[in-house]
Amino acid sequence: MKKLINNPDDVVREALEGMAAAHPDLLTVHFDPTYVVRADGVPDGKVGLLSGGGSGHEPMHNGFVGRGMLDAACPGEVFTSPTPDQMQAATEAIDAGAGVLHIVKNYTGDVMNFEMAEEMAESGGIDVRSVVIDDDVAVEDSTYTAGRRGVGGTVLIEKICGAAADKGYSLDDLEALCTRCNDNVRSMGMALTSCTVPTAGEPTFDLGEDEMEIGIGIHGEPGRKRMEVEPADQIVERLMTPIVEDLPFKDGDDVILFVNSMGGTPLIEVYLAYRKAAELAEQHGLRVVRNLVGPYITSLEMAGLSITMMRADDDIVELWDAPVHTPGMRWGA
Amino acid sequence: MKKLINNPDDVVREALEGMAAAHPDLLTVHFDPTYVVRADGVPDGKVGLLSGGGSGHEPMHNGFVGRGMLDAACPGEVFTSPTPDQMQAATEAIDAGAGVLHIVKNYTGDVMNFEMAEEMAESGGIDVRSVVIDDDVAVEDSTYTAGRRGVGGTVLIEKICGAAADKGYSLDDLEALCTRCNDNVRSMGMALTSCTVPTAGEPTFDLGEDEMEIGIGIHGEPGRKRMEVEPADQIVERLMTPIVEDLPFKDGDDVILFVNSMGGTPLIEVYLAYRKAAELAEQHGLRVVRNLVGPYITSLEMAGLSITMMRADDDIVELWDAPVHTPGMRWGA
Repeated sequence: MKKLINNPDDVVREALEGMAAAHPDLLTVHFDPTYVVRADGVPDGKVGLLSGGGSGHEPMHNGFVGRGMLDAACPGEVFTSPTPDQMQAATEAIDAGAGVLHIVKNYTGDVMNFEMAEEMAESGGIDVRSVVIDDDVAVEDSTYTAGRRGVGGTVLIEKICGAAADKGYSLDDLEALCTRCNDNVRSMGMALTSCTVPTAGEPTFDLGEDEMEIGIGIHGEPGRKRMEVEPADQIVERLMTPIVEDLPFKDGDDVILFVNSMGGTPLIEVYLAYRKAAELAEQHGLRVVRNLVGPYITSLEMAGLSITMMRADDDIVELWDAPVHTPGMRWGA
Repeated sequence: MKKLINNPDDVVREALEGMAAAHPDLLTVHFDPTYVVRADGVPDGKVGLLSGGGSGHEPMHNGFVGRGMLDAACPGEVFTSPTPDQMQAATEAIDAGAGVLHIVKNYTGDVMNFEMAEEMAESGGIDVRSVVIDDDVAVEDSTYTAGRRGVGGTVLIEKICGAAADKGYSLDDLEALCTRCNDNVRSMGMALTSCTVPTAGEPTFDLGEDEMEIGIGIHGEPGRKRMEVEPADQIVERLMTPIVEDLPFKDGDDVILFVNSMGGTPLIEVYLAYRKAAELAEQHGLRVVRNLVGPYITSLEMAGLSITMMRADDDIVELWDAPVHTPGMRWGA
């Protein structure tokens, strides 16, 4: 294992110290329990937005804390759920009287711990709602999941809900919006290589020199199929077809198209894949009204990509376009 | 070789088609000769800003075309200089009557071809200046270079000069600013792994399972030293010390600190490295007034990082803060 780290046990803490040093205007890092919170405090009466999950998917979620997106994030160790006490502390920190929405990716540990944190916070008098994101069409159940996994849709949803919270949405309305976004987003990923969790020191799984995994999870969980590597255009079609058919997306739909690098895939290849994804969307009669291209939800240094598509009405597009200023996503500010 | 590509010969063209599809509001791609130009045209009387070089370093340079940064970029094949006819066409496309500045990374092919393009454009009546960027302190001469290589400083310089051109700087003033920035910026990089040029199909160089290359070039050119991998903090010190000593940066200097991923290194490790780089800067009495963290000048999927530091007076900081809207760098717009 070759990594730019010191002690494998200190990777998450030291990376958080780096984030704190780089972005003091945007976020503050608390340790023990560990959470990242916006530096300027949550405005009175605004619903607080919290997400979290295992580390190793950067910039998600810590990199989406700031203005116009998440108010706080709870990072676990690499590919390990954060604990309820982290979530409880973060929830308390961002409650500004209007309650807190938990955006939870559907992994068993995350769901269980966010449920406990919700109970703890509610017994402390904070109104908390949770929406579980499960946008991955690859598999119905998975290694760490009952039901579908939460993946790239989470990135879009955190942006959109962040804008809505800024706009003054109530907790009820924000919960409804988050659910509606989740109902209208689908994703699927693939990998050319594994990744190595620092404390494990060995690749999470093995892939042959000519193999790829279609439908991979963001922790390297098995997908639909292991097969020989194909030209990129065919790979993109293998991801786009199940996405389009699952919702189903329909002729005339406006969509946000998000082509994501799993981390180790260079941007030149992500754009090459975007080209084909956009072409296929058009062939299905979809109108790509917004897009996102790059590494936003990663699996350490895994080579591969995922595609996410969200059906987007004018409200969603307006929320998408609203200013955002976080380390990992920024525009209009 | 496992890559998300179709035919190795089509990688650059297809990635450019993807960029064109993703960012029609920002840029337009011309083929044969190939260049990327801002979509909204250069305002009358503004100096045009052109850069370019081999592909494989994305988002640099194509991803820096838009508003507030480059007006055009000429991509070569992967790790291969673009040709003079590309540069000439791009220069003509962005001349709005005030001349064109070429920002050239110091590689023999780039320098030679930009010189030819400058002559061609000048014989066509366009006032052209060139500034050669040579910020890499690792080696004095290199495989593809007479003199020092141009690396991470280029990213900062393109942003700063883009803002200055927007502000109405004349060609003389812009040339002087670009030279001043280059005089005040230093960089050094390292690699844990090689990368593979698609048309070559084999890694550019070999590194042992426990080895790293200190002072690597962005095409995998040899650096100062091949040695056993060390903890990240020591590696960062191996990069920071020569940077600080070379200028030399002095107690009390304000600096922009840029910690860059070579592509395959995940963001969690880049922030971990930033933590140490910022700490060392402080120990040297430097004040980090701005920073940039992430993959901005890459070497395909190479794992590694580079550190760049620029001495920044108030003018530089103001230009750095000015709005920019490109696919690869965006704020305030």
